[in-house]
Amino acid sequence: MKILRRKTYRLHILFLLLLLAMAHLGVARAEDQPPQLPSYFTATNADAQKPTWPDPTGGASGVWATPAGDSKGDVPSSLSPTDLYDRIAHNLFSINYVWALVAGFLVMFMQAGFMFVETGLCRAKNASHTSAMNFMIYPLGAFGFWVYGFAIGWGNWWNGPVPPGWYPSLGPGLSVLNGGIGIGAAIDAAGNATGAYTYGLLGTKGFFLSGAVNDVAVMVLFFFMMVFMDTTATIPTGAMAERWAWKNFCIYGLWISLPYCMYANWVWGGGWLAQGGINWGLGHGAVDFAGSGVVHAMGGVIALAGAMVIGARIGKYDSRGRPQAMPGHNVPMVVLGTFILAFGWFGFNPGSTLAGTDLRISFVVVNTMLASATSSIGAHLALSLKGLKPDPTMLCNGMLAGLVAITAPCAFVNPMGAAIIGFVAGVLVVFSVFFWEARGIDDPVGAISVHGVNGLWGVLSVGIFATGEYGAGWNGVVREEMVKLYGSDGVRGLLYGDFSQFIMQVIDCAVVAVFGFVMAYVWFKISDLITPIRVSEETELEGLDAPEMGTLGYPDFQLHPDQSGRRVA
Amino acid sequence: MKILRRKTYRLHILFLLLLLAMAHLGVARAEDQPPQLPSYFTATNADAQKPTWPDPTGGASGVWATPAGDSKGDVPSSLSPTDLYDRIAHNLFSINYVWALVAGFLVMFMQAGFMFVETGLCRAKNASHTSAMNFMIYPLGAFGFWVYGFAIGWGNWWNGPVPPGWYPSLGPGLSVLNGGIGIGAAIDAAGNATGAYTYGLLGTKGFFLSGAVNDVAVMVLFFFMMVFMDTTATIPTGAMAERWAWKNFCIYGLWISLPYCMYANWVWGGGWLAQGGINWGLGHGAVDFAGSGVVHAMGGVIALAGAMVIGARIGKYDSRGRPQAMPGHNVPMVVLGTFILAFGWFGFNPGSTLAGTDLRISFVVVNTMLASATSSIGAHLALSLKGLKPDPTMLCNGMLAGLVAITAPCAFVNPMGAAIIGFVAGVLVVFSVFFWEARGIDDPVGAISVHGVNGLWGVLSVGIFATGEYGAGWNGVVREEMVKLYGSDGVRGLLYGDFSQFIMQVIDCAVVAVFGFVMAYVWFKISDLITPIRVSEETELEGLDAPEMGTLGYPDFQLHPDQSGRRVA
Amino acid sequence: MKILRRKTYRLHILFLLLLLAMAHLGVARAEDQPPQLPSYFTATNADAQKPTWPDPTGGASGVWATPAGDSKGDVPSSLSPTDLYDRIAHNLFSINYVWALVAGFLVMFMQAGFMFVETGLCRAKNASHTSAMNFMIYPLGAFGFWVYGFAIGWGNWWNGPVPPGWYPSLGPGLSVLNGGIGIGAAIDAAGNATGAYTYGLLGTKGFFLSGAVNDVAVMVLFFFMMVFMDTTATIPTGAMAERWAWKNFCIYGLWISLPYCMYANWVWGGGWLAQGGINWGLGHGAVDFAGSGVVHAMGGVIALAGAMVIGARIGKYDSRGRPQAMPGHNVPMVVLGTFILAFGWFGFNPGSTLAGTDLRISFVVVNTMLASATSSIGAHLALSLKGLKPDPTMLCNGMLAGLVAITAPCAFVNPMGAAIIGFVAGVLVVFSVFFWEARGIDDPVGAISVHGVNGLWGVLSVGIFATGEYGAGWNGVVREEMVKLYGSDGVRGLLYGDFSQFIMQVIDCAVVAVFGFVMAYVWFKISDLITPIRVSEETELEGLDAPEMGTLGYPDFQLHPDQSGRRVA
Repeated sequence: MKILRRKTYRLHILFLLLLLAMAHLGVARAEDQPPQLPSYFTATNADAQKPTWPDPTGGASGVWATPAGDSKGDVPSSLSPTDLYDRIAHNLFSINYVWALVAGFLVMFMQAGFMFVETGLCRAKNASHTSAMNFMIYPLGAFGFWVYGFAIGWGNWWNGPVPPGWYPSLGPGLSVLNGGIGIGAAIDAAGNATGAYTYGLLGTKGFFLSGAVNDVAVMVLFFFMMVFMDTTATIPTGAMAERWAWKNFCIYGLWISLPYCMYANWVWGGGWLAQGGINWGLGHGAVDFAGSGVVHAMGGVIALAGAMVIGARIGKYDSRGRPQAMPGHNVPMVVLGTFILAFGWFGFNPGSTLAGTDLRISFVVVNTMLASATSSIGAHLALSLKGLKPDPTMLCNGMLAGLVAITAPCAFVNPMGAAIIGFVAGVLVVFSVFFWEARGIDDPVGAISVHGVNGLWGVLSVGIFATGEYGAGWNGVVREEMVKLYGSDGVRGLLYGDFSQFIMQVIDCAVVAVFGFVMAYVWFKISDLITPIRVSEETELEGLDAPEMGTLGYPDFQLHPDQSGRRVA
Repeated sequence: MKILRRKTYRLHILFLLLLLAMAHLGVARAEDQPPQLPSYFTATNADAQKPTWPDPTGGASGVWATPAGDSKGDVPSSLSPTDLYDRIAHNLFSINYVWALVAGFLVMFMQAGFMFVETGLCRAKNASHTSAMNFMIYPLGAFGFWVYGFAIGWGNWWNGPVPPGWYPSLGPGLSVLNGGIGIGAAIDAAGNATGAYTYGLLGTKGFFLSGAVNDVAVMVLFFFMMVFMDTTATIPTGAMAERWAWKNFCIYGLWISLPYCMYANWVWGGGWLAQGGINWGLGHGAVDFAGSGVVHAMGGVIALAGAMVIGARIGKYDSRGRPQAMPGHNVPMVVLGTFILAFGWFGFNPGSTLAGTDLRISFVVVNTMLASATSSIGAHLALSLKGLKPDPTMLCNGMLAGLVAITAPCAFVNPMGAAIIGFVAGVLVVFSVFFWEARGIDDPVGAISVHGVNGLWGVLSVGIFATGEYGAGWNGVVREEMVKLYGSDGVRGLLYGDFSQFIMQVIDCAVVAVFGFVMAYVWFKISDLITPIRVSEETELEGLDAPEMGTLGYPDFQLHPDQSGRRVA
Repeated sequence: MKILRRKTYRLHILFLLLLLAMAHLGVARAEDQPPQLPSYFTATNADAQKPTWPDPTGGASGVWATPAGDSKGDVPSSLSPTDLYDRIAHNLFSINYVWALVAGFLVMFMQAGFMFVETGLCRAKNASHTSAMNFMIYPLGAFGFWVYGFAIGWGNWWNGPVPPGWYPSLGPGLSVLNGGIGIGAAIDAAGNATGAYTYGLLGTKGFFLSGAVNDVAVMVLFFFMMVFMDTTATIPTGAMAERWAWKNFCIYGLWISLPYCMYANWVWGGGWLAQGGINWGLGHGAVDFAGSGVVHAMGGVIALAGAMVIGARIGKYDSRGRPQAMPGHNVPMVVLGTFILAFGWFGFNPGSTLAGTDLRISFVVVNTMLASATSSIGAHLALSLKGLKPDPTMLCNGMLAGLVAITAPCAFVNPMGAAIIGFVAGVLVVFSVFFWEARGIDDPVGAISVHGVNGLWGVLSVGIFATGEYGAGWNGVVREEMVKLYGSDGVRGLLYGDFSQFIMQVIDCAVVAVFGFVMAYVWFKISDLITPIRVSEETELEGLDAPEMGTLGYPDFQLHPDQSGRRVA
């Protein structure tokens, strides 16, 4: 057994080494090339002192980055159009930095929301452990993302398919993200690899945010993408709560970047699913604006695999296999957590433009809000239909389900579409919770239903409700027949005339469900051999707080005997 | 009884149908007209492909909305002043979008603050119910606002009185909000209705955010105004807590947009109170920067009507009518809720510029903070004067009172004025709480005193302390004699030379108090016939959590017998 | 005794009068001078109506502050480069206002985080008192800062040393902050005092934000600096919790601005420590980007002095002086508070640029996040090394330690440097907590270790890990030999070639430790004579909630007898 554990360790180290080796081999030629920038980024400022990329101060993105860089005094009346343009461009980049960073802060704060929702839905005897998992996943996830996640997810971002005339909203420094691995490498006239692939598989630049990506724009992208990853990372802590061993959880926290960033590369990093429009003529390729699939469905299917491997809590099913109620210990905590999540979602969704100058953000915000409203109402009606009272924790899961579902389509649908998507999500989550529970999958917080089921619904809904008003040229797709028909080729669901987009979304759903599930199932089985995934029966009955964390959640309060954190006599 | 309930339903449906019919009739001609825009909005970009309003991508508001719209590459050196101007204008709109949206997120988060303050101030046996009301009001309120509230409140926003040379900070798309109902319709030279009225009464455009208002700028306005409405909506849940039946609460949540948006139209939507300066020569008409009156006084008087109709909690008054203390069950919860509210207020007040490019926002922020500081200190001193200890929940109400009071004057006063307004509010709220309690009005959280009394004080204080430095041309008023005296005609209170503004503020106070109270009193009486407003005595004694919501707030904790959620033997 | 108290009062009043007198004398000449502005700020707009500084509407900072100011309609095609420049500049200032204000909101919200962390780490019987201290410090601190703190800290800000070609990111209005006291007054050619000093000691302009500083830019600076001060103010409430008398705490709240703002003036207000580079050739003078020293070390050493003067809690040490565990009463509260703090830190650190247009903000954000991640992991490993379980409250303190440490260096180091600084902080805080506890210093929340010890480590780490990429010209230092060697003279630690910077950081550490400790020790000793610093033994044993605040924290919950808020029989 011990040997096996060591072997598994070795396997992991080997795997990582292999990855690193591939990285450095794969990008050798591409990195030698200076990034190819559109003409309107070069020479906007004739100052010979101006730095080039990577640019750690931002002085190369227009002027007025003070006190570093080109901070000479201006004589306004003598400025040329190019000088003025340079100052306008710097303002533009600054607006986008402020927007993306503030949005990222809100997403980071969602960790607190997950922590309160999940802890409130558990029993008091596990409050310390559940809140600690939701706390520690943030540092552990961030660490893994910094070491290798960002590189494999976004290391070849610059070579992904983009609309004609596109500019990077965070500035030209992103052009340093130009190293990756894929099938069918493109070469330029001189026979050098351009870094682009027909089927992108992985990025290979940016491990440890090393010098080669030492650029202000890269840092914005890193931060925004890191906090997204952490959302995925924290979802399984809910489904596996009240029985997950701390050590096993810790190594999971370092591993989660692997499946997340691989799949993220395929959809957001310019990989093969994003290229599905160009390669296979299926709509605009996989379209997932803010991550119903990349973030939530991925988290949900990992949660499902985890709940299956770890098994149900003691007492969840009676001797005849009938599920028993195990109510959360603190309803106001759950409600506050939900509000924090809904608040953070206003960073999650509109922030995904990475551009405050993309004014579509206002639609994203309104759609996000409306979907969360109608989904709460939908969950309420579904509970009534089932003859149940409006349990606040189910209403909260209703709101979260709507938020998850609208995450992929938020920029592409109109308010009416958003309201419908949300309403369906709210009904769906109620039935889904009972569905899994009846099948023996014990998910204390409903994470599989909220994030998994509704994540997939969100990805699908793009293929149904997208209006075509927004997303012209998305993933590099501009189809002449669409431009003729509609004036531009925006992302368009089957209700608005593009059935092929729906097909692509179905494929995307299948990929995330299968890939995420298999990766996670294998991981949880292997990691159980390294260090056991589940606490002892005695620890579980007593509550995990004292034996695992060394501290009770509520030492001063008297708990009911069966929830006291002490074994029932 | 059943027949009556059905009749009331029918009445409501009839009312809504009437409203819709009026909407479509009333605006028929005005809508046919393209919006009249100042010259500096038209033709800033010669691109014939450029969309017109409504504009769902933002591509018409300058360039650089990517990837949709006019995203062609620039050749900086060949750009004309008009091209440059177009890019500058797009940056300007973007800054204002980012500002207004982020501010709106903070306001939305205030829901969490209300939830924690109100739940913490109730007893543990009602924690699930109180937090659920404060949760569900957000979806219910948003739904009503989307269906009809925004349309009646802001549907004719473009035709309200504005300063000379004014531009809409969110871009020209707001010009589609040009349909309404009023008295004294203006006609243009060709004899067509312009959409403007001498006395504006209601807007009629934007029901369901339908296609006619499918514009990025409209979405910002919708979102910001929606979260404001929700603040009003949640105030009465505090005054009526621990006894309000869930179903009655739910239909209230759909109704609240009606009185709120009607009155909001009169003050903020260009209606007759805003026009009081132009029509009657009273200052700048009703001035309420961020809603001491529109949001807080309205919520407070509805709370008063609700508390009167629903009656006091069992046990609040002894057999001789003397009030009994019913302390809140969780002080840190109240404090956290208060901090969340104070945090959100930094969106509420400065966000009400709808413009980050209006640099007066910095005064708004400082005034808001100072008033909240002096009001907390004022409440502390008032408690000392009454010989009471510094009860943290009263200190919290003190801070909230100051925040409510500074909401109307925040942009128009100086820091010293803000400090005085806040201090008065802090003292006022303490005496007000005891005043209402002594009169048999049972308000578990002090909502009537915090929002009602101090909302009115805030509206009045504009008429006293406004310095005239800011608000030149507000509500379209520019008086030559004022410009001669002071250089410009800013909003000015009686201490700074404009007594007529004070009169207008008194009128505004009277309108909100009478209109809000009558609307709410009638509603609560009628709705009680549809479904009872109050839970049964048994439910109230047991606590509302199990019977109304089906779930206890704190099932794992041992509560004191009289607060246990079980009837005292 | 009574006489002594009165005398002490009189001493304080005398002190304040003296300060005010000095203020008005000291700045008489400097104020008569109009601020000297670089040419690129003057005459950018030829409008003769344009206001001058102080400018309460922002109309002088470019155009488009609506509805006040210069809001005439534009004819884009006829605009000159100067007109366009004016609009670009206004956008720039607006971006920076939005950034600095939003960042300030996040910092203000940290109050809620401190409140939850400190209250959760105390016992249930003191929850009302601990949360009330963390609440009331915000109003009390803000009041003192408004009355005198801002003036002594930032009143001569404009005359501090700045890089060549520097512009104030918030606009030229900051030039009104030009009155102070110091040694070695500079005079201009005409023999008038310029307001600059060789060794700046104190500012003297802006008491009560009076008319002379009635400017939009000053208000941004005031707000941002106020919320920083409040962080310092709230740190000692943790170390002195569970025994600090309310009245003594209240007068402390008014006093705290004095030491804070004096030292802040020396480092951030252009005072003698900032001038250490120019005067003594030591690096760039004291460099403390966002306040590891100014805010956290200052708070930590005051906390140490307070904990020493007030003494350990009853029962903390047994009869043989061995420390006893007194676990916090609510772990999820501590975790939520920590997340709120980590969220707010994303305002604290990058907001300290006071410029969204300084794109280095993205590095600041990433460094802040990475340090908080590695410090949590470091604390976890340190606990393991000591054979302890991963107590979630210690993991939280680990994260906070990393955030404190990265606060000074966040803009100057690279991600790898940040990760190392954070890791060290996480290990350090664990050992430090045990160190102080073993020495009889009873600090219920670990404030001395988190803020004091790691604040000093943060200041030092600038002198070790700063890369020189950023901060060219910081504090007015541009050394020719450095420019020759490296291309520019950024802030550089000893690992990157500037040992003198490390020396300066050591001096800075010594100053904050000695000055802060002495000021605080004397204050606590004196204030104890005015009103006792510590509650009675009876009150402490019962819990402070009822006797001090008049209200229990959790009246409905059954507590364990020894934590019940009632004396153990």
